[in-house]
Amino acid sequence: MTYSQAVLDGDRLALSRLLTQVENNAPESRAALIELFPHTGRAHLIGVTGAPGTGKSSLVNQLALYYRKNENKRVAIVAVDPSSPFTGGAVLGDRVRMRDLAGDPGVFIRSMATRGSLGGLAQSTANMVQVFDAAGFDVVIIETVGAGQSEVDVARLAHTTLVVEAPGLGDDIQAIKAGILEIADILVINKADHPGVEMTEKALKSMLELAHPTERIFQHHGVSMRIAAPKQDLSSVQMWIPLIQRTVATEGRGIPELAVSIAKHVTHLTQSGDWAIRERARLEVELDALIHEELVSRFRQDLPQKLYESVLEKIIQRELSPGEAIRILLNGRLK
Amino acid sequence: MTYSQAVLDGDRLALSRLLTQVENNAPESRAALIELFPHTGRAHLIGVTGAPGTGKSSLVNQLALYYRKNENKRVAIVAVDPSSPFTGGAVLGDRVRMRDLAGDPGVFIRSMATRGSLGGLAQSTANMVQVFDAAGFDVVIIETVGAGQSEVDVARLAHTTLVVEAPGLGDDIQAIKAGILEIADILVINKADHPGVEMTEKALKSMLELAHPTERIFQHHGVSMRIAAPKQDLSSVQMWIPLIQRTVATEGRGIPELAVSIAKHVTHLTQSGDWAIRERARLEVELDALIHEELVSRFRQDLPQKLYESVLEKIIQRELSPGEAIRILLNGRLK
Repeated sequence: MTYSQAVLDGDRLALSRLLTQVENNAPESRAALIELFPHTGRAHLIGVTGAPGTGKSSLVNQLALYYRKNENKRVAIVAVDPSSPFTGGAVLGDRVRMRDLAGDPGVFIRSMATRGSLGGLAQSTANMVQVFDAAGFDVVIIETVGAGQSEVDVARLAHTTLVVEAPGLGDDIQAIKAGILEIADILVINKADHPGVEMTEKALKSMLELAHPTERIFQHHGVSMRIAAPKQDLSSVQMWIPLIQRTVATEGRGIPELAVSIAKHVTHLTQSGDWAIRERARLEVELDALIHEELVSRFRQDLPQKLYESVLEKIIQRELSPGEAIRILLNGRLK
Repeated sequence: MTYSQAVLDGDRLALSRLLTQVENNAPESRAALIELFPHTGRAHLIGVTGAPGTGKSSLVNQLALYYRKNENKRVAIVAVDPSSPFTGGAVLGDRVRMRDLAGDPGVFIRSMATRGSLGGLAQSTANMVQVFDAAGFDVVIIETVGAGQSEVDVARLAHTTLVVEAPGLGDDIQAIKAGILEIADILVINKADHPGVEMTEKALKSMLELAHPTERIFQHHGVSMRIAAPKQDLSSVQMWIPLIQRTVATEGRGIPELAVSIAKHVTHLTQSGDWAIRERARLEVELDALIHEELVSRFRQDLPQKLYESVLEKIIQRELSPGEAIRILLNGRLK
């Protein structure tokens, strides 16, 4: 028996239990995911990412509160928490967040530690998002901490990606922005009451100019002026220039404006056809991850442990390179 | 023809070209890696990781300078740079670093953007480290920015892992420390001239107490005091308690002391047998990553593109769940 029907019926306890099964990649969860899948594809998936210290969690809480109070949307939050890759660290996060949103049946918060390796996290997150989507949540916010691959995976998973910055976070931040900017649909400068906010916004704007050199398009059409391409017009011909939005999440400032920016992005996605493109990309990534997992698990099942051990020992002794070793292992298997 | 012999002969241009091939996973690089592998296993691999803004790059530069000047060691630096997951951002980093270490033939610095997905980065990094190891570099420093899976991968790759912190980096940092601590052999508090350094050290110490509850061991032997277990004794019975080291990398302060701590860790690794254990774990991770890659690439080759496309389309239409789809794809292949 799976929890899928109960989840569709709005049973929170069943939802919670299924999420645990999904996070643990329990065999029961597979059937449930198959049963729930036809009910997915309706939620708006919002990714929120950025460096530590930017106040992402507060921002996500405030956004969730806003959607509850003003748009009566049901909101799920998946907080991907890299705080403990080894022992898991989900409980504390859940408790801290609950204070703001506790007792509201239209909100469900779930933290996930970054356990597992090689895409396992992205896969579990994708599965959780599917469960929330099928359970009828209108908005699913996926929050990640850190910089690097996990951000890219969020971007692949979400319809709308918010990159959160804060003033004066140190020199390395500059370096990170360059790549993160490329996945941002909306740039949020949180802690906008802190000193340095003007400089942060200026830096972001000039990096946006670099990343979205609208002039070039116009040069191509014979206009060689480098100044002020009409961005508004471009956006109506299906280009999205990331918006910049200041917030002070701890005081709720800038949140309504942020919600407006997000709504604009949804309109853009649907009008331009990008919604369907992102859906397709997301499902393809998911399918590929499942294929990986299944291939490796089948291979492991078929591989004699003794052969593996002896090959590994030869590598350690430098008698065999890893490159030579896989030939032996994979051909041994294909025999 | 591969560059492997030239690399073994100390040819820097060949080294540089091979590294590019390795980073791009070029077919020529595979043969070279196989040829170089028997010459690996001698370098000391030092991982350096931590949140943005901690001054990791300065620290790594200073450490490299120290090894050059005082121990006449040849030092390679692999800076894994998540600044641009999409377009690559290696050049700027290289240039900035060159000022300190330029013209020294005993130093080689290589930045890598976090391209690719699903372990591709870890694999390329592992391969680069192998090239440097075979090329006779005594120390290979692997530097990563960010928080999350990449840090864990660094820990798996390195003999000694330094986790760099800095005073007053914001609230999220606390959360990250918990997990990162578990991979740290040495905790470096850089920017130790900044306010808040005492608090940072205190916080790290109490987290270390939590992570390494030496009391428990003594309770187990009938001693129930919670105070001050003799850590020195424990470390001599093959337990390593992470050391804490303050530095001001920009001024070179604390670097000699850090080098001493690192040397202590090497002594511990060799005396306790942990060096061999880490070597084994590292090579196993590498072998597994290669197996994954090869399995997926063989599968892709055999899979009819039309079948894949039609299955993906059915998923998008919610006629098929990803879980059902892989059964069709993998069984179709096995027929």
